Amino acid sequence: MDPRHWTLYLAPGTCAQATHIALCEAQAPVQLRRVDFASGQQRSPAFLAVNPLGRVPALVTERGPLVETPALLAFVAQSFPEARLAPLDDAFAWARLQAFHSYLASTVHVAHAHKFRGARWSDDPASWEPMKAKVGPNMQEAFTLIGRDWWQGPWVFGSQYTVADPYLYTIGEWLEGDGVDTAAFPWLLEHRERMRARPAVQQAAAQLQALVEVAA
Amino acid sequence: MDPRHWTLYLAPGTCAQATHIALCEAQAPVQLRRVDFASGQQRSPAFLAVNPLGRVPALVTERGPLVETPALLAFVAQSFPEARLAPLDDAFAWARLQAFHSYLASTVHVAHAHKFRGARWSDDPASWEPMKAKVGPNMQEAFTLIGRDWWQGPWVFGSQYTVADPYLYTIGEWLEGDGVDTAAFPWLLEHRERMRARPAVQQAAAQLQALVEVAA
Ligand SMILES: N[C@@H](CCC(=O)N[C@@H](CS)C(=O)NCC(=O)O)C(=O)O
Ligand SMILES: N[C@@H](CCC(=O)N[C@@H](CS)C(=O)NCC(=O)O)C(=O)O
Repeated sequence: MDPRHWTLYLAPGTCAQATHIALCEAQAPVQLRRVDFASGQQRSPAFLAVNPLGRVPALVTERGPLVETPALLAFVAQSFPEARLAPLDDAFAWARLQAFHSYLASTVHVAHAHKFRGARWSDDPASWEPMKAKVGPNMQEAFTLIGRDWWQGPWVFGSQYTVADPYLYTIGEWLEGDGVDTAAFPWLLEHRERMRARPAVQQAAAQLQALVEVAA
Repeated sequence: MDPRHWTLYLAPGTCAQATHIALCEAQAPVQLRRVDFASGQQRSPAFLAVNPLGRVPALVTERGPLVETPALLAFVAQSFPEARLAPLDDAFAWARLQAFHSYLASTVHVAHAHKFRGARWSDDPASWEPMKAKVGPNMQEAFTLIGRDWWQGPWVFGSQYTVADPYLYTIGEWLEGDGVDTAAFPWLLEHRERMRARPAVQQAAAQLQALVEVAA
């Protein structure tokens, strides 16, 4: 498997940023392809052939496509052990990392998605407003719990940076837009600054910016 | 780590069955503790100390608790390699397995949860009915996609049984209650029969039944 033959499908402002940063941390020279959500490209036949779920991230490899952020983060960490992005040799610590990813994907990301994707869970437009109204409180509650029960600092799992960090950073960037007052989470704001100081995070941002400019 | 010192918290009819079956397949002699949802025990201080999310499954080990079905299934497969419950030596096949688990947890399980847990995503009781109404169509769509894009047969990932099988079996058992006509999914009904013929599945069912009877 050679990452030069891999293509990551992504879109600005989405959870795909977590996988993108992880690949930059691993210095994996993958190709990038932007999926244009504004024109509904995620539901185009070409993209559905890559990911029938019509979502990013999707990583196409020589052996076929891989999807789902938790699976991709684990895959990047395992494919590039020298980047030391996860506790690969400790099944318990590894399971804690996977549990955190699963919580972010199945509870926190889903809580956020109720803002714009109400139609996924109800056909009645009248129900979308109350769903929207609960996004802020749910995200507030989730990050309170993360700060109390998961966060160790200076990185999510303590002194060792892992793929959980770009995932937390990515979902955490949605909070202000969700109406959450992040001043209540100083540990998160400091983590955000720590993340933005990393070359891999800056590289991912620059690569995405270049893709967006090409399209414009 | 010695599974005789582990305790799995579970409840009948929940996703915890997947982890329970996986542990039986691995012949891991864990303790079982039933969480009584009828009396709201999942929100008791004693259980919140185990899992602050107030959900099952939770597996307490000598090193602390582990939560989230995808993480637990991976942990069981890795802790008992001789049971051959996952492609442990192939990072790509492993990532496909994790992606399937992540899809079940973050999309399919969540689609189902909108039936009884509408209050999680909206404070307006009027919105819970339309959410309920969409559970059947969403589950129908998800299993159509699983049958088309994931399912290989006779097990989820082909000839080798993996921890994905008890997970699919467990969520698949919810379909009739969700109003889905499972006759449309013969591959799933055959998988169900294949699962029920396995000693580990029968053992898990008998253990749960014994726990429920003790409580009654
Ligand atoms: N469980 C998936 C969720 C992926 C997902 O929902 N991606 C969003 C962007 S954050 C998306 O592509 N949405 C497009 C759409 O729903 O049309 C993961 O963790 O990767
Ligand atoms: N993402 C978690 C979800 C766990 C979950 O939602 N469990 C349900 C049972 S299927 C539960 O304990 N619900 C109790 C409640 O919501 O009060 C996982 O995959 O393990």
